[in-house]
Amino acid sequence: MLQLYFFPMACSLASRIALMEAGIEARYHLANIWTKKVADDDRDFRSVSPKGAVPVLVLENGQHLTESAAVLQYIADRKPETGLAPPPGDPDRYRLQEWLSFIGAEIHKAFLFPTFWYKDDASLAKPRARIGQTLSVPSAHLADREFLVGDRFTVADAHLTWALLLLRAAGIDVAQWPSLSAYHARMQARPQVKAAIGIEAALRKTLAA
Amino acid sequence: MLQLYFFPMACSLASRIALMEAGIEARYHLANIWTKKVADDDRDFRSVSPKGAVPVLVLENGQHLTESAAVLQYIADRKPETGLAPPPGDPDRYRLQEWLSFIGAEIHKAFLFPTFWYKDDASLAKPRARIGQTLSVPSAHLADREFLVGDRFTVADAHLTWALLLLRAAGIDVAQWPSLSAYHARMQARPQVKAAIGIEAALRKTLAA
Ligand SMILES: N[C@@H](CCC(=O)N[C@@H](CS)C(=O)NCC(=O)O)C(=O)O
Ligand SMILES: N[C@@H](CCC(=O)N[C@@H](CS)C(=O)NCC(=O)O)C(=O)O
Repeated sequence: MLQLYFFPMACSLASRIALMEAGIEARYHLANIWTKKVADDDRDFRSVSPKGAVPVLVLENGQHLTESAAVLQYIADRKPETGLAPPPGDPDRYRLQEWLSFIGAEIHKAFLFPTFWYKDDASLAKPRARIGQTLSVPSAHLADREFLVGDRFTVADAHLTWALLLLRAAGIDVAQWPSLSAYHARMQARPQVKAAIGIEAALRKTLAA
Repeated sequence: MLQLYFFPMACSLASRIALMEAGIEARYHLANIWTKKVADDDRDFRSVSPKGAVPVLVLENGQHLTESAAVLQYIADRKPETGLAPPPGDPDRYRLQEWLSFIGAEIHKAFLFPTFWYKDDASLAKPRARIGQTLSVPSAHLADREFLVGDRFTVADAHLTWALLLLRAAGIDVAQWPSLSAYHARMQARPQVKAAIGIEAALRKTLAA
C-alpha cells in the first residue's frame, strides 16, 4: 500500500486529493514540518527524507519519492483510467508538466513559501509585488476553461486547488480574479476534493489547539 | 523546426544544452528578459509568452511550451534513443521529474531568482541562509554517482549544470561541496555542454558591452 507523509493543509494536500480522486487507499503519516517530528512515533522526519519536507510518498518497493510534481504524476499513472494525467506521449502531458512546474515554482516557491516561512515584511515585499502578475496567467487560462488541462480534472487541478487555499490564507483576495475564484469553487465542490480538505482542515485545528 | 526563445546564461541554457545533446537543430531567438524585447524584430516578448520569461519552446505545430521541466522533457522525448530522459513508465522517469522540480523550485525559484531579480540584502537574507541545506541534497546524492538519474546524462543534468553556473555567479562557492564541483567539472567537459555554454557566454558578453 502506498504511504504518504503529509502535514495538514501543506502542499501534500494536493497528493491526498490525487490519491482520493484516484480511489487509491493509502496510509497517511503526519509529519510536523516545523518540529520535524513524525507524529506516529516521534521519529526525526529527516530520517524519512533528508529534505525534511512534505510530500513524501513511500512506494510499494519501499522507495521514497518527493516533490509534488513527481508524486502527483506517479499517483495519476497508477490509475490511468481515471484520467488524472493525460497518458505519456499525449501532447497534453507536457501541458500538465507545465502547470505542475508553474504552480510548484512560481506560486508555491516564489510566493507561498516565503510568506509562511520567512514571514518578515522585508522578505515578503518583492514576492508580494509579483504575485498578481503570476496569478494573471492561470486566471486568463481559466477564463473559458473548466480545468487546467484538457476537459477533465487532473493532478494539476489538485495542485492549484491547494495553492488557492493557501493564497487565501496568505491574505490574497482571489476574488480579484473571478475566473480563479469560480474555478476554485468548482473544484472544492467535487466530493473527493471536499473530503480531502475536510480531513486536513480538521486535523490542522487539532494541532493548533 | 523547433524554436527556442532564450536569454544568454538564463535558465533557458538548460534547454539549449538538451537540444544540442539530442542533436536537434533548432532556431534560437534572443529575448531580453529585462527589457522584454525580442532581439530579432524588437517585438514585445510578452506577445510570445504572457509570462515574459524564458524558456519558450515553439513546437512544430506553432504551439508554445514554457517551464523548463516541461520543455526539457519534451526535447528529451523527441529523441528517445539518446536517453536524455528515461522512457515514460520507467521508475526512473519519476526520479527525473523529482530532480527537475527540485532544481526549478528549490534552487532556481527559492534562491537564484531572488538573487538576480530582487538583489537587495533584505530580500536575500533568508534564501541565502537556506541554500546550503538545499545544496546538501544533490551533493549527497552525487557522492557516489556520475549522473543525477540512472547511469547516463539526462536533461536533469542539463538543468543542474546551468544552476551550478549561476550559483557561482551568485557568489556561492560550490567547492564547499566537492561532489558537486567534481560533477560540474565532468558535465562541463562534455563537448555539447561546453559548446552550448560557450555560445551563450560569448553572447552574454556582447550584450553587456
Ligand atoms: N518543491 C517541493 C516543496 C515541498 C515543500 O516546500 N513542502 C513544505 C510544505 S508546503 C515543507 O514541508 N517545508 C518544510 C521545510 O522546507 O523545512 C514540492 O513541490 O513538493
Ligand atoms: N519556472 C520557470 C522559470 C522561468 C524563469 O524564471 N526564467 C527567468 C530567466 S532564468 C526569466 O525569464 N525571468 C523573467 C521574468 O520573470 O520577468 C522555468 O522553470 O522555466
